[in-house]
Amino acid sequence: MSSTTLITRNDSATSLPHPLDQLSAAETSVARGVILAARGDNVAIKFRSIFLEEPLKKELSQFLDLEHAGQLNTNIQRPPRLAKVQYDVVHGTKGPEYMESVVDIVTKKEVDQRVVEKVHQSGLTTHEFREFNEACIESPLFKKAVAGFDLPEGFVVSIDPWPYGGDAEVVPRYTQGLCFARDNRNQNLDSNHYSYPLPIIPVMDTYTKKIVRIDKLATGGKEDGLAYGTHKKNVLDHCSPGEYVPELMSQPMRTDVKPLNVVQPDGPSFKVSGHLIEWQKWRFRLGFNPREGATLHDVRYDGRSVFYRLSLSEMTVPYGDPRPPFHRKQAFDFGDAGAGRAANNLALGCDCLGVIKYFDTVATEPDGTPSVSKNVVCLHEQDNGIGWKHTNFRTERAVVTRLRELVVQFIITLANYEYIFAYKFDQAGGITVETRATGIVSVVNIDPGKTSPWGNVVSSGALAQNHQHLFCVRIDPAVDGYNNTVVTEQSLPMSMSKETNPYGSGYEVRQTPIKTSQYFDASPTTNLTVKMTNPSKLNPISGKPVSYKFIPSASQLMLAHPDSIMAKRAQFAQHHVWVTKYKDGEYWAGGEFTNQSKKEIDGVADAVARKENVENDDVVVWNTFGLTHNPRVEDWPVMPVEIHQIHLRPADFFTCNPALDVPGVKNATSVLASEEESCCAKGDVQQAASSHIQGSGPDYKPKSKL
Amino acid sequence: MSSTTLITRNDSATSLPHPLDQLSAAETSVARGVILAARGDNVAIKFRSIFLEEPLKKELSQFLDLEHAGQLNTNIQRPPRLAKVQYDVVHGTKGPEYMESVVDIVTKKEVDQRVVEKVHQSGLTTHEFREFNEACIESPLFKKAVAGFDLPEGFVVSIDPWPYGGDAEVVPRYTQGLCFARDNRNQNLDSNHYSYPLPIIPVMDTYTKKIVRIDKLATGGKEDGLAYGTHKKNVLDHCSPGEYVPELMSQPMRTDVKPLNVVQPDGPSFKVSGHLIEWQKWRFRLGFNPREGATLHDVRYDGRSVFYRLSLSEMTVPYGDPRPPFHRKQAFDFGDAGAGRAANNLALGCDCLGVIKYFDTVATEPDGTPSVSKNVVCLHEQDNGIGWKHTNFRTERAVVTRLRELVVQFIITLANYEYIFAYKFDQAGGITVETRATGIVSVVNIDPGKTSPWGNVVSSGALAQNHQHLFCVRIDPAVDGYNNTVVTEQSLPMSMSKETNPYGSGYEVRQTPIKTSQYFDASPTTNLTVKMTNPSKLNPISGKPVSYKFIPSASQLMLAHPDSIMAKRAQFAQHHVWVTKYKDGEYWAGGEFTNQSKKEIDGVADAVARKENVENDDVVVWNTFGLTHNPRVEDWPVMPVEIHQIHLRPADFFTCNPALDVPGVKNATSVLASEEESCCAKGDVQQAASSHIQGSGPDYKPKSKL
Repeated sequence: MSSTTLITRNDSATSLPHPLDQLSAAETSVARGVILAARGDNVAIKFRSIFLEEPLKKELSQFLDLEHAGQLNTNIQRPPRLAKVQYDVVHGTKGPEYMESVVDIVTKKEVDQRVVEKVHQSGLTTHEFREFNEACIESPLFKKAVAGFDLPEGFVVSIDPWPYGGDAEVVPRYTQGLCFARDNRNQNLDSNHYSYPLPIIPVMDTYTKKIVRIDKLATGGKEDGLAYGTHKKNVLDHCSPGEYVPELMSQPMRTDVKPLNVVQPDGPSFKVSGHLIEWQKWRFRLGFNPREGATLHDVRYDGRSVFYRLSLSEMTVPYGDPRPPFHRKQAFDFGDAGAGRAANNLALGCDCLGVIKYFDTVATEPDGTPSVSKNVVCLHEQDNGIGWKHTNFRTERAVVTRLRELVVQFIITLANYEYIFAYKFDQAGGITVETRATGIVSVVNIDPGKTSPWGNVVSSGALAQNHQHLFCVRIDPAVDGYNNTVVTEQSLPMSMSKETNPYGSGYEVRQTPIKTSQYFDASPTTNLTVKMTNPSKLNPISGKPVSYKFIPSASQLMLAHPDSIMAKRAQFAQHHVWVTKYKDGEYWAGGEFTNQSKKEIDGVADAVARKENVENDDVVVWNTFGLTHNPRVEDWPVMPVEIHQIHLRPADFFTCNPALDVPGVKNATSVLASEEESCCAKGDVQQAASSHIQGSGPDYKPKSKL
Repeated sequence: MSSTTLITRNDSATSLPHPLDQLSAAETSVARGVILAARGDNVAIKFRSIFLEEPLKKELSQFLDLEHAGQLNTNIQRPPRLAKVQYDVVHGTKGPEYMESVVDIVTKKEVDQRVVEKVHQSGLTTHEFREFNEACIESPLFKKAVAGFDLPEGFVVSIDPWPYGGDAEVVPRYTQGLCFARDNRNQNLDSNHYSYPLPIIPVMDTYTKKIVRIDKLATGGKEDGLAYGTHKKNVLDHCSPGEYVPELMSQPMRTDVKPLNVVQPDGPSFKVSGHLIEWQKWRFRLGFNPREGATLHDVRYDGRSVFYRLSLSEMTVPYGDPRPPFHRKQAFDFGDAGAGRAANNLALGCDCLGVIKYFDTVATEPDGTPSVSKNVVCLHEQDNGIGWKHTNFRTERAVVTRLRELVVQFIITLANYEYIFAYKFDQAGGITVETRATGIVSVVNIDPGKTSPWGNVVSSGALAQNHQHLFCVRIDPAVDGYNNTVVTEQSLPMSMSKETNPYGSGYEVRQTPIKTSQYFDASPTTNLTVKMTNPSKLNPISGKPVSYKFIPSASQLMLAHPDSIMAKRAQFAQHHVWVTKYKDGEYWAGGEFTNQSKKEIDGVADAVARKENVENDDVVVWNTFGLTHNPRVEDWPVMPVEIHQIHLRPADFFTCNPALDVPGVKNATSVLASEEESCCAKGDVQQAASSHIQGSGPDYKPKSKL
């Protein structure tokens, strides 16, 4: 199939797109036309996004049941094919109005319409970000502020637009910008401007495009408290270059990294048809939207349902510097900007190795026309070492298998910073959700010779502020069906007692079903494990409910004061695990509107507060985890990846190790580093260490001996 | 170099082995001869081990300083070349006496001698294990016990010898055995006997080789408490096969795993000379001994010292089943048996991919003669995804590098179970210590239809008991020198205050130096980070002491009751981090003698109790972590790997990202999965998602504009 036409005809029985397929360019154009016609000619419309409105679960699940029963045909009732359209309407003098409509692509009708309350601000589009630069250059305020500094000869000012964050006052739609200077003498646009931070933040009225004020930033150290510090005119003179593009780096590149190639002579083990992906008994559909980026749907193993939907829901990055206006330095990268909008176009041989399949998506221009964004998701296989091994010490026979993984990866850039997100499938029924943080840490100017309690000086004059990355993964389980019960399992010490624990060696494993929507925290001291069980399906061997499990990592939660706006607008970052009852369209842990929010509205906290039944019901599990990042000098100028993983694993879902049938074939292309003889035994037979052999100490044959 | 002659002549200036080189076969033979001569003819000697006695730190560090200063020559004072010899002396009727001697290989003199107190039991050799089988087969007690069962036709009894564990009573040197039956009808010695557990444990006097008693095991379920259960005669009739060798498996093997080859056309990036390993600015020496397996020494990056010695010190596996005699089911796999003795002989293309270098070791036969054990350690490179990346949204230029790792791996087999240990070096100055648990979980017989609170039925009639794996890694830092200070760093919330934290956004990073030897626990809620700092070396950029750090994982510690023998003999498993003052020969977290120990003697707890200064001193850091393993059905018959990692990372040790000079070259052999055109831009330049482009929104050139 070609990945440029996004209408995929893999609904075998019909020629229609699968209900989970992304909208094609053609389909988004239909939606655009309907909205333009419906709003009429006396208004101007600025489009933000047009993307698939996912079907209601009731309708989609019926369709999926038919699909998996092989009963799809043209006569069946299909979920309507819907487009969500997000746009601003400008009626003459009256300020813009943010609206959302739902358009039926087939009937070409606007089936739903909503004028969003002014209290909410929609996420910022990259087009709005773009306009920030021009506004600054036109602004007398901004020019005056910059003129207050003596910039080194040949330097130009570079501005990174940011969301305005959460303010104490009520303000209109605002955008702020972090300012830096770029050494333009080398005439290289990729010279790293972040090492020259300017202590000002221009604030723009996002709709009028006017710079309304310039916030002055402190440049002080620990001795200055909240004061501004010296804030000298030649504020960049003590700063130094922090180049990372090869042609500008002073240090030579390594010459001793020899090539390591991943070669798959027979091609990949996966099969892709449209957005349907099949690999090693796994089968799922890939979705992609402007806010969440890649999403996984209808995830099945060997025909059995495991997850209805798997997605990265939200993340927030609060900065721990108490000096105003840094209390507004808090991005919600999914709700404020959009992971899908920020997705990199991946390049062959750069972002992954081996045989790669790329997926595109359809983006929306301000006039509503579609533009294809290439390679926003990549799919590939990788080897992750040994999968399982056992050596029989009697015979010295070893059976060893490799751990092969299928990786669905996308990467987002948010001004200075990068996140690499991956869903990794393995052959033992496991899925790992991985985040990698990289890119350039956010720095502010600090006076010469000073250090700060609020961060680390990573380059002369550049203070990398302490901050946290708090992610939330949304898990919509369908473990052998849609009705599941979440059970916590804890391992607990037992008291010593002649009757029950005479030698004190025993410990108790306690199961607690979650009956009403609620939150709880990780508890490594009790080995707290979250099991998503199907109480009506028992494992034939253990007699226990089939389940998938994960151990929530006890990563540090939001450090900002509970009464701070930072904390209030990210309730999802207050606890590790949230269990809610499924509700159509409830995808966002931090609420639908995070941009300039003052508190989390309709996020997981509100969902839990509904106190609904979640026992043997359609449940959703939200896992919050994070990284408290107090920067090291080693994080400059571009930081090595910081990796976090959640492991979703079967627990009594199967009747044995699902990877037992992975052949332990010997890899034919591995070679010895030196010319010495290999002592490798034939096939996958290995010798146990000679000192370890018990020999085949004769087994005891009672029948013959007695 | 050949890996069969273990005298390595890589001490460039002389023809002598490096003080850290393992003993060669010839050297162990010298040591054997000296001991035989010294003890005389009227005694019989049974050798246990002969291996390198590592030099005193004072002597070795002087040598290393000269080595790195390039001042080695034949005139310098070298540390004596010593062999540790462990053996039993049998004087006629008098029972065996366990002795340890130190022999100077050069002077051929016994320079130290010790008769070990009877309260201690030396670790079991595989030869002692081997003798267990014969003893059982000769034993009327054992025959009678087995005759008590009706074994299915064609089954034979297989016995797994185990350490006796910690007993309440005082007993002589004992070994116990777990008994199973193997279906011999298929005439395949690799048929999995573990799925047919017999509820008896024979106990042998290890010296007299007599079976002294047969312990009867309970077969009951939760309804039976500590009682034996039905313990029926046809105890195996409800058990079923659990085969894992391909030729015996009923289910077909997967046919859709296509080859994934790691090809290194220009060879590996590492250089090996004897036991000296160099890779990507890293330089270290590989050691190997019968107890710890692979150890790393004199670990340096770019000529700067980082670690003096890195090793896996001890591990214990307590089982959580309170029914006697399972309170004695607790292995100390390093102290009781020996990771080096249990090391697998690795096979090309099975245990790792790409270009592999193997290392051998010299084992000791009971008569003291050496036997070379091949391929006990493997060395190879692997790709671990993206190392760092940044995309400039203005120019759409992306720079991305791969994360290359060097892996030092060894694998041990302990009867039913396997551990895969790896030290992974990366290009950003990091070292990851990884453990993978795999193999066959330990099962006992359970009556038909019953379930148990003490484990999970993973196969009909087979109860996999709940247990823990508790590891301890020994870190002997030398961060830019031998005198270091351990500092804990915690991130803590701040109260809201107009003066210091007006909006509640700030948080405090608190550093606490460890001044006296002590223990403490992981604290993820405060993001507790352990920094091994050099207080006399400040980072020129941040002004902070150079350091290496790790975040101790808050994995669950020993669950057995503190008053239980299980807990007493593993004090190291009571806390996550132990900071002690260096002492020559103090390598073992659980003490020197763990076999049949009743409490931990001279382990980390006693070392900490010395209350010595550890500030700006020669410190050792011990990190305990573990895995509470309540088995899943998916863990049967061989479990998928359970992975744990500790990340040792530089923190202000370097002046920038050490991987900044890793070239972001595009991998030439990666290909597209389908025939579609690649949209990959030239070189490592990539397009940012079109929807994400801010265009090169003009920078602001103040000088020209004002």
